[in-house]
Amino acid sequence: MQVLRITRPGGPEVLDFEERPAPTPGPSDLLVRVGATAPNRADLLQIRGAYPAPPGAPPDVPGLEYAGEVIATGPLVRRFKVGDRVMGLVGGGAFAEQLITHEREALPMPENLDFAQAASLPEAYLTAFDALVLQGGLRMGESVLIHAVASGVGSAAAQLCRAMGARVFGTGRNAEKLSRASAWGVEKTVLCEASPPRFADAVREATGGRGVDLTLDLVGGDYVPETLRAMAPQGRIMLVGVVAGAQAPVDLNVVLTRRLRITGTVLRSRPPEEKMALAQASERHLLPLFRAGTLTPVVDAVYPMREARDALSRMARNETVGKLVLRWE
Amino acid sequence: MQVLRITRPGGPEVLDFEERPAPTPGPSDLLVRVGATAPNRADLLQIRGAYPAPPGAPPDVPGLEYAGEVIATGPLVRRFKVGDRVMGLVGGGAFAEQLITHEREALPMPENLDFAQAASLPEAYLTAFDALVLQGGLRMGESVLIHAVASGVGSAAAQLCRAMGARVFGTGRNAEKLSRASAWGVEKTVLCEASPPRFADAVREATGGRGVDLTLDLVGGDYVPETLRAMAPQGRIMLVGVVAGAQAPVDLNVVLTRRLRITGTVLRSRPPEEKMALAQASERHLLPLFRAGTLTPVVDAVYPMREARDALSRMARNETVGKLVLRWE
Repeated sequence: MQVLRITRPGGPEVLDFEERPAPTPGPSDLLVRVGATAPNRADLLQIRGAYPAPPGAPPDVPGLEYAGEVIATGPLVRRFKVGDRVMGLVGGGAFAEQLITHEREALPMPENLDFAQAASLPEAYLTAFDALVLQGGLRMGESVLIHAVASGVGSAAAQLCRAMGARVFGTGRNAEKLSRASAWGVEKTVLCEASPPRFADAVREATGGRGVDLTLDLVGGDYVPETLRAMAPQGRIMLVGVVAGAQAPVDLNVVLTRRLRITGTVLRSRPPEEKMALAQASERHLLPLFRAGTLTPVVDAVYPMREARDALSRMARNETVGKLVLRWE
Repeated sequence: MQVLRITRPGGPEVLDFEERPAPTPGPSDLLVRVGATAPNRADLLQIRGAYPAPPGAPPDVPGLEYAGEVIATGPLVRRFKVGDRVMGLVGGGAFAEQLITHEREALPMPENLDFAQAASLPEAYLTAFDALVLQGGLRMGESVLIHAVASGVGSAAAQLCRAMGARVFGTGRNAEKLSRASAWGVEKTVLCEASPPRFADAVREATGGRGVDLTLDLVGGDYVPETLRAMAPQGRIMLVGVVAGAQAPVDLNVVLTRRLRITGTVLRSRPPEEKMALAQASERHLLPLFRAGTLTPVVDAVYPMREARDALSRMARNETVGKLVLRWE
């Protein structure tokens, strides 16, 4: 099978194709022929040598999500059979024609989605669902602030909030991208071109002075002090990314008197039992909303796999809205 | 009745006695003759004018906890009768000969405690129980780091950890005080005389490199970066105080990759339903351990009320181990 591998640390240009033997499924594994995959910022970090793959994932083949068809199963597999269409997250190795995954980490593809749509879904929606709902405890009627709302996770999170009866506010650094956000249910956006950004007053005003109950923060850095100011009492901040930087000054008095909770989260490094649990919860709680059309993956563009380097370069330049997809032809 | 009131913003010397009419209990309230009360750092802040009393509490009479005897009840009171001994938290006004409290915010005094012991108990143990157990999710077998472990809350938290089957480590700035900590179940203490403090390596070593699952932070400030370094994956930091300062530089990468959770918490400003819920949970889960002698309030000294100014001054100078108590004669 073909894989797209990291030949040396660098930018997307260091990726190159290589022929490899197909992996062998273990007793509870599926062998999946990958129809499509989607690049993520974590892939850029891994290509640069800054984010090593976890144990069990191929060290030199990026790719964290896929959609495809089951072409072989281990002897203990019960949930899927050859020919089934599946999608899911993997610790790496999705930039390949085939991959293996534990059957309890795979999700059945909703019938109304194609490979490209399905491949764009796992990282964005499972991250948003896990952060907002499972860890963040989001409930209807609450107000949510989403930073980088035009990103893959951001647009997924906004749709999820709307579907659950929560109000959504969003920030971003590009007016044109933000103009798309109302389609995902975002009630108000705040353009943050300056550094440090200013959005707390606008968010407080939009919530009648109360602030938001939950923030999904994909940005970190100098957004953090403003985020603290934008929170309602007992508000929860879910920290999912730090693209604006990892150092943040925190006013502990605000955290304490407003009884805030700040939680850092990442999916990739989790142990298998947690990955399985997230996949199973997502099957129960997320997939019905894709089948009903309540959630729709936001796909910026679909590239053939041979143009993966161009696609990753576009992502690195922040030119995309929602997700990019890479498709094997 | 006599109250000890704040005559003007300042240090403990601005407190003075005054005669006032006794408060009138509402339908579900108890009128309590205060046997003893205990000063807290929050009282020092309030006396200085930096921590106004919440609505419903007398603005100029400090005092957040008490033990005493029920001398009258509102017509709807069901849980207590005149003559019962009770203790509990109030939003203020405990530096008085009488106070009123909702019957569901009051706790029955364990029979084996006197007023002085009982008055030293609510703020320290309910804060520790709420932060460690109800919010922090502490479970047996986990490791806990307690900053300022020789304080009232610190010594209470250490005993609670031991009673629950958790390992306890503690920090403090005074070697003599820390020498007391083994009696409360603290396995290892780290003396932090320098600024910034250094304790993360010692804590990691004591936990086989893993770090602690939970930190009870009464200190904040420059303890925060070291605390982050001392945490195990998915560790929880409960921020209860900021005596070392409210500004903290936070490395978001550590929060994210180690999936940490930082929660600020304070009791005094909570709405009545939360205060009642904490009192009821404490009655079920904490009081049996006092009756059994598993938990023992750490009382530094008992002062007559007329020496309250001296007692508060000693607390301000960090000279105490555990709690000070003020007793009406």
